[in-house]
Amino acid sequence: MMALCACAVTTAAPVPPPLAPPLVPYVLENTEVRDIRAAALHRDYQLFVALPDSYATSGRRYPVVFITDANYAFPVARSIASRLHKHAGLEEVIVVGLSYANGESGNYSRRRDYTPTVSRNGGDRSDMPGRQQAFGEAAAYGRFIATEVFPLIARQYRADMDRKIFVGHSYGSLLGLQILLTRPDTFDHYILGSPSLWYDRGVMFDREKAYAAGHRDMPASIFFGIGSRETLAPGKTRSRAEERFDMVADLRDFHGALAAHRYPGLTSTVKVFADEDHASVFPLVLTHGLRSYLKRKQ
Amino acid sequence: MMALCACAVTTAAPVPPPLAPPLVPYVLENTEVRDIRAAALHRDYQLFVALPDSYATSGRRYPVVFITDANYAFPVARSIASRLHKHAGLEEVIVVGLSYANGESGNYSRRRDYTPTVSRNGGDRSDMPGRQQAFGEAAAYGRFIATEVFPLIARQYRADMDRKIFVGHSYGSLLGLQILLTRPDTFDHYILGSPSLWYDRGVMFDREKAYAAGHRDMPASIFFGIGSRETLAPGKTRSRAEERFDMVADLRDFHGALAAHRYPGLTSTVKVFADEDHASVFPLVLTHGLRSYLKRKQ
Repeated sequence: MMALCACAVTTAAPVPPPLAPPLVPYVLENTEVRDIRAAALHRDYQLFVALPDSYATSGRRYPVVFITDANYAFPVARSIASRLHKHAGLEEVIVVGLSYANGESGNYSRRRDYTPTVSRNGGDRSDMPGRQQAFGEAAAYGRFIATEVFPLIARQYRADMDRKIFVGHSYGSLLGLQILLTRPDTFDHYILGSPSLWYDRGVMFDREKAYAAGHRDMPASIFFGIGSRETLAPGKTRSRAEERFDMVADLRDFHGALAAHRYPGLTSTVKVFADEDHASVFPLVLTHGLRSYLKRKQ
Repeated sequence: MMALCACAVTTAAPVPPPLAPPLVPYVLENTEVRDIRAAALHRDYQLFVALPDSYATSGRRYPVVFITDANYAFPVARSIASRLHKHAGLEEVIVVGLSYANGESGNYSRRRDYTPTVSRNGGDRSDMPGRQQAFGEAAAYGRFIATEVFPLIARQYRADMDRKIFVGHSYGSLLGLQILLTRPDTFDHYILGSPSLWYDRGVMFDREKAYAAGHRDMPASIFFGIGSRETLAPGKTRSRAEERFDMVADLRDFHGALAAHRYPGLTSTVKVFADEDHASVFPLVLTHGLRSYLKRKQ
């Protein structure tokens, strides 16, 4: 036995090192991806669902956050909501990310689904070869959320569908305003960051007036947030027709117009975050927007 | 044939609907998870690596961000860095998340690996059944990063190892200070959020003095950030011995002590973020800390 061992050690071919296991990508814990066919839109989307830590054991229902531009925003929102729960005592939530349409670029999908109109100023060129860029389908996309996404979430999860929160940024906030000014009770709280109110020569200002002409109330809770640097470049004067706009001034004007109607059912605040710009402000808007609505633990 | 068909349609058992595909979790694109054995620590960890969009085609090297508490911070950092590139023109980076030790709770792992000492005030109880909580191994964990993590990253990726960025928050910033006050040139930029300077009756203040006694320079770039609400509860007076501390005042004191030495190689700034607290400030610290170091595209 000894001799055999020694022989094996000295003369056998070297044993190859064990194969390294293949690399896997990073997976977000407690998340699920669901396919959803938008029947009226004839397109396929995905829902990214993040469940709170206590979900499996609590039996409770949770407020549910629907978030646009989810490829960027879903991982951020899930981490922020979890930290606000653990370290600041806010309620846990379910986060539902709304994907771009399957097979489409993010730009292509969001320009079509989040904008309320085809802009009179024209719009960006398509970044998908062979497909002309579409715009102005926010109304239809909003109906998809309300009539197809909501029932799926209500059926599959212990979501408190009386406490639905909308989160958008930039064009995503245009979609939020489209829903707000059509059926404000679609969501129970709207978190709207840096809305693109300059879009189509300020068309959402017209929509706001039209809503006011037809309604005496707007049952909604809104948190608007924007970075203080989202203003006009120095030396420029505002001109929506020429797309020289000051997003902070636009937001103050819009909020002022909403507030002037004194809708009894409307709660609305604006927060301007010092030193932040369009690229950096989203995590702040989300944090403060959630704080303005979610309850603290007892 | 016709008869057979008709018969089958009317009398066969109903065809079961196709099985729904199993749900998959949400995967972060362009990420890889690598196992790493910490040889000196006799423990296993993981590295979560996020590659920038241009990585596959550019052939370039990228600055590399090493981030603690990665289970929370990695998904956030990856999204923020990507957005700062796309919308604010900052350089792209590789993000490397430093996991907790395999099989350990986050609390257990970070208390041991991120704290510089065993606190004279005692420390939190272990949340792992049957295992007493360990503290004070930041020096050893820092050596693991420098001698085992760095070579792996340098070998596997086009990382510019002359542009390494450390990111920590809370206890994670204690680890950063431990490294800074031992081998400041370990990283080229330190982003340190809300450091737990109260830890062990302010031991990092003593370490700072000891470094100053032995050195004439500190070659380092540091961005400190903290929330304005991370102060003492009203009516309390500061007493580190009794763990009544004001983290904002502590940070200003610490930064003042560093600055007083006028180290020629040190660049250090403090930013206090209005209205933010320990639970909410991290995305801001990261955003401004990256901006203070990364270059803008031409």
